Amino acid sequence: MEKCKIEVCYSPALFPYYENPDAIVVVTDILRASSAIVTAFMNGVERIIPVGTLEQAKAYKERGYMVAAERDGIVRDFADFGNSPYNFTSERVRGNQIVYSTTNGTNAIQLASSGCQVLIGAYLNVSALANHIRKQGKDLLVLCAGWKNKFNLEDTLFAGALVEMVLEDDHFHTICDATYGAIDLYDAAREDMMGYIEKVAQRHRLKQNNLDDVIGYCHQLDLTDLIPTLEENYLVPLRNVK
Amino acid sequence: MEKCKIEVCYSPALFPYYENPDAIVVVTDILRASSAIVTAFMNGVERIIPVGTLEQAKAYKERGYMVAAERDGIVRDFADFGNSPYNFTSERVRGNQIVYSTTNGTNAIQLASSGCQVLIGAYLNVSALANHIRKQGKDLLVLCAGWKNKFNLEDTLFAGALVEMVLEDDHFHTICDATYGAIDLYDAAREDMMGYIEKVAQRHRLKQNNLDDVIGYCHQLDLTDLIPTLEENYLVPLRNVK
Repeated sequence: MEKCKIEVCYSPALFPYYENPDAIVVVTDILRASSAIVTAFMNGVERIIPVGTLEQAKAYKERGYMVAAERDGIVRDFADFGNSPYNFTSERVRGNQIVYSTTNGTNAIQLASSGCQVLIGAYLNVSALANHIRKQGKDLLVLCAGWKNKFNLEDTLFAGALVEMVLEDDHFHTICDATYGAIDLYDAAREDMMGYIEKVAQRHRLKQNNLDDVIGYCHQLDLTDLIPTLEENYLVPLRNVK
Repeated sequence: MEKCKIEVCYSPALFPYYENPDAIVVVTDILRASSAIVTAFMNGVERIIPVGTLEQAKAYKERGYMVAAERDGIVRDFADFGNSPYNFTSERVRGNQIVYSTTNGTNAIQLASSGCQVLIGAYLNVSALANHIRKQGKDLLVLCAGWKNKFNLEDTLFAGALVEMVLEDDHFHTICDATYGAIDLYDAAREDMMGYIEKVAQRHRLKQNNLDDVIGYCHQLDLTDLIPTLEENYLVPLRNVK
């Protein structure tokens, strides 16, 4: 049996070179969109409508939707709240649908929709995600949201953590340099993740805006088995996760 | 005094997001174009005309130029020879000018020309290169040629080696995640570089075509002080290297 192929794409701008319609695409934006999305489902959000532009987000707001929208870490004034996982409280989100637009994450989700399934990945749900992927017998492409199309470390480390778990199943293999790079960087960082994360550019950006309180939270493993997936144009929890 | 900034760009497709007209741009394509170019100058080539397309290379051939041209590692039939550093012997190249077109490297050189100086980097000239850069007091951008716009490990490792040397001078600094990634991957690989290189995709491609004899050669340090640079549309040795 031919093995399932694993690849990691470090930037939405590189997606055309990795695109694979047969692959499950896992989108990750650890600080903070994918961690926030997983948190929202943990807290009972019904569905999330990811939109690429602030104009679209604003139009939804005018139609009465609850909107989370930020650029460069800053909440937009028309929005109900921004991109911190701490914003997506049970009180706010349970049973609601939320429109969501962020600097990097929501654009990556839209690109990923060319894959056979789109999943949202974070440390918060990494084991459930790896288990699900191992059972599907499909190729895996991890799309790092990056920062304005630049490479970022925190998404790459997560990609390394995830693919290392998936590769424990020998039905999967990789010949992708970016996948090896992600694994080796994760292995360099894992012993002291919070120490390693000190140097990443996004940590400094968040700190400047007093938004770095979420970094520890976003690196916690397995708070949930929920896996957000794209259905048509909105995110819902994947059903029948075993 | 403001410090000089170091960045690493992992793919020509990401260059627009890193582009910096004030930076010295070092182009690297370790397996094999940048190693071959440095070797050609070691062996006395007068100048190299990098061209992006095979059509351009063929047109030069028809006008009587000596042409090195390959795609996917294979010499093109109209060309005099291909992309192995071993092709650029003293007997062939001394005193000549050569037209050169490769899968990834020559395109990267053309992109890089938006920088304030374009230099060709390889392990073969890495110390001379680092010394030169440290003396210029300018930003540094390392452009990895990659593989058809995908990330590759061998160029990234070289970027790590080079920036580590440049950062020994505290007039330089970095806040670039890709630079940290390159350094950390180089640090993971350096103890056993040939063992590490076993896994890179380009090694497998070269081996399939019996072209992997150059891998050890391309990872030798400091065989020369020559630094190829782009002047107008051709590569010549940088003058006044101290």
